[in-house]
Amino acid sequence: MRQRDAVHAAIIAVGTELVLDGRSDTNGVTVARLLASRGIDARMRLIVPDDEEEIALALEDVQRRFQIIIVTGGLGPTIDDVTREAACKAFDLDLQEDRGVLDSLKERCRALGREMSSQSARQAMVPHGATVLPNASGTAPGLQLTVAGTSIFLLPGVPHEMELMMRDHVLNRLDVLGLRAGSPRSVSRALKVSGMTEVEVQERILDLLGQPGEARAIDLTLLASPAEITVILRGAREDLIAHAFERVRERLGRAVFAEDLDTGIEAAVGRALEKRGLSLAAAESCTGGLLAEMITRVPGSSSWFTQAWVTYCNEAKISLLGIEPALIVRHGAVSAEVAEAMAEAARRISGASIAVSISGIAGPSGASPGKPIGLAYLGVADRVGTRVTRHLFAGDREAIRLFSARTTLNRVRLECLEAGE
Amino acid sequence: MRQRDAVHAAIIAVGTELVLDGRSDTNGVTVARLLASRGIDARMRLIVPDDEEEIALALEDVQRRFQIIIVTGGLGPTIDDVTREAACKAFDLDLQEDRGVLDSLKERCRALGREMSSQSARQAMVPHGATVLPNASGTAPGLQLTVAGTSIFLLPGVPHEMELMMRDHVLNRLDVLGLRAGSPRSVSRALKVSGMTEVEVQERILDLLGQPGEARAIDLTLLASPAEITVILRGAREDLIAHAFERVRERLGRAVFAEDLDTGIEAAVGRALEKRGLSLAAAESCTGGLLAEMITRVPGSSSWFTQAWVTYCNEAKISLLGIEPALIVRHGAVSAEVAEAMAEAARRISGASIAVSISGIAGPSGASPGKPIGLAYLGVADRVGTRVTRHLFAGDREAIRLFSARTTLNRVRLECLEAGE
Repeated sequence: MRQRDAVHAAIIAVGTELVLDGRSDTNGVTVARLLASRGIDARMRLIVPDDEEEIALALEDVQRRFQIIIVTGGLGPTIDDVTREAACKAFDLDLQEDRGVLDSLKERCRALGREMSSQSARQAMVPHGATVLPNASGTAPGLQLTVAGTSIFLLPGVPHEMELMMRDHVLNRLDVLGLRAGSPRSVSRALKVSGMTEVEVQERILDLLGQPGEARAIDLTLLASPAEITVILRGAREDLIAHAFERVRERLGRAVFAEDLDTGIEAAVGRALEKRGLSLAAAESCTGGLLAEMITRVPGSSSWFTQAWVTYCNEAKISLLGIEPALIVRHGAVSAEVAEAMAEAARRISGASIAVSISGIAGPSGASPGKPIGLAYLGVADRVGTRVTRHLFAGDREAIRLFSARTTLNRVRLECLEAGE
Repeated sequence: MRQRDAVHAAIIAVGTELVLDGRSDTNGVTVARLLASRGIDARMRLIVPDDEEEIALALEDVQRRFQIIIVTGGLGPTIDDVTREAACKAFDLDLQEDRGVLDSLKERCRALGREMSSQSARQAMVPHGATVLPNASGTAPGLQLTVAGTSIFLLPGVPHEMELMMRDHVLNRLDVLGLRAGSPRSVSRALKVSGMTEVEVQERILDLLGQPGEARAIDLTLLASPAEITVILRGAREDLIAHAFERVRERLGRAVFAEDLDTGIEAAVGRALEKRGLSLAAAESCTGGLLAEMITRVPGSSSWFTQAWVTYCNEAKISLLGIEPALIVRHGAVSAEVAEAMAEAARRISGASIAVSISGIAGPSGASPGKPIGLAYLGVADRVGTRVTRHLFAGDREAIRLFSARTTLNRVRLECLEAGE
């Protein structure tokens, strides 16, 4: 197998459910970010089932190519936890009971007023030569091994236990091992855009990054999701990345709502409203609470978001928002007229500075002649007046709901920008 | 490297954002499920960056061990798409322009009234000897290669294009290759439980599955998420799995809300309500629309879910639901009394058969003496009366909101069960 000379890490997530059952591996994502914070690039993520043989094969393979391996999962007390055994198999080590770990497991049980089960004692088994990493918030300790120059860390699969152990023990140990300094640091900057397609974004910025086939100092990644395109610039030279980032940001202008990966449009809108002392209310139909849920995910959103109505049926639109039944009969619930009335009622009743409304057809059923799935009317009412826009969003139910909620939030953001900085 | 004799698949997802930026790889999950539907187990998922060398190394490694490899991503027209080149590097193949693909790309552009860019033409480059798989809904075709007995499929990364291609082309080709028949079929059954912890579930069922260390015919996987434990039984013998599944279900009783992986508590509640001709309304505070959003994710939920109020601030509780200001002053917004009044008001105003309310402290701020983060009062009002339960949920803001919403839905489900089958 070919060798690599730079210091790169591989991440192995253990869990049958991650391979076969459609569970996302969030641990690998967390580990990659924490390593990146120390300038170490994860170059591979591997996901293997709770199978001793498969885990052992994976460990053997990556050990030959990587200087750092982080394994998450399979250290617990239950019968599907076999990472300890797999590591011993891969590197020909014995598994031995560690008195210190056993005593602390017993102590923990005593404090909870319970007997320790024989099964829990499995967590005290340690591969010969491994260092034990204490688990501040759970039972299974972590383990550190060194095999032919590769530092291997076995961490528990419970996300917050794993994250604490990475922060408290693994990152420091990597520093001590000097594995940080020698690594080719990769610099990245990201920004997020709403109201443009992926192709529109690429066409607007591609010439800034060089031609295909050319050796490029800047790698571009574009990620599309409903009403949100993420642009990532990456390279080795901080100055080049910073320069390109400024030019990309200029080109994309007001479509840019965030300059990092973690800020959602809901947080961006919150900042824009808070800065101007404005408040928001919402009347939702096809999004069924998604807009409110997105907003209230943001800690502190209560300072600018007061209330929402989920008027999922026509009767609720009539009784809660006072929409004229005749208006619904004449134009249908999914119409510019009803969206306008919903936004105005929401603003009047709530007293909020701005109220938004969403009425659309998320599918899979509900389409009618002239009103296809994906049709949505989005209303924004403020002191200037009420504007309704018509959209035809592509995708499944989930995508259409996301498009509707995010596009509405982006409209509020743009109105804030227009109202003045 | 060791060889495996059974027919297993490896899945490689290509995308720098999947390794470094905290994007979840959903394609790998979809591919694993589709393969499982044909009795083929994915034994490894690999995630690698958009890097020709890394993709090539990954392909070389897994080709030695697996008879089927599915690669997703990196086939598009943009400069970060290098999977074609990587496959050629790994297996020493030439990349050649395919006239048929080029013509259909040109045709597609003409239909949209555009010139084809030189960049788009990259999608017509095909490794020597590869079969082209048509893309029914996008531009990048898929590619099939056979290398030393391993069937390798390169598929586009856009999720719905990839899924269509898997369904329309890959699965049939695997059948034709006879890779289905020879595989050791793994049988699994799953059920989902609410209202119990992972340890409680395990203690109640573990003796059914044999002792640790024993050779077991049944593998158990337990997955914990807020207010939802998933139990998966897996093995080679259908009869043993079916028998164990029945016994596990008996032991867990009414805590079981689903007998598959895809049904959420919101869909389970919907079925229970629909069966009894009941309707639901909600008044949410700390969950901020999450309960309504979960419910309206379910297609057809409009037949049993009518409306919700997101009363995120006290004023909204007072003005929309008519909660007495004195009640809030006396007990606080997060109290059994206010939760009770919210549920009763929601039922009265909506006319729904059942109304629920949620008032809690999701954090990170908002705690006060005697009212810690995680405290939640959940109300259920129906024709019999109103019951409020007090909970102390552990976790971060997102976990507490999920615990609150799911526990509320589970209470509605249990009330339906008690009201009669």
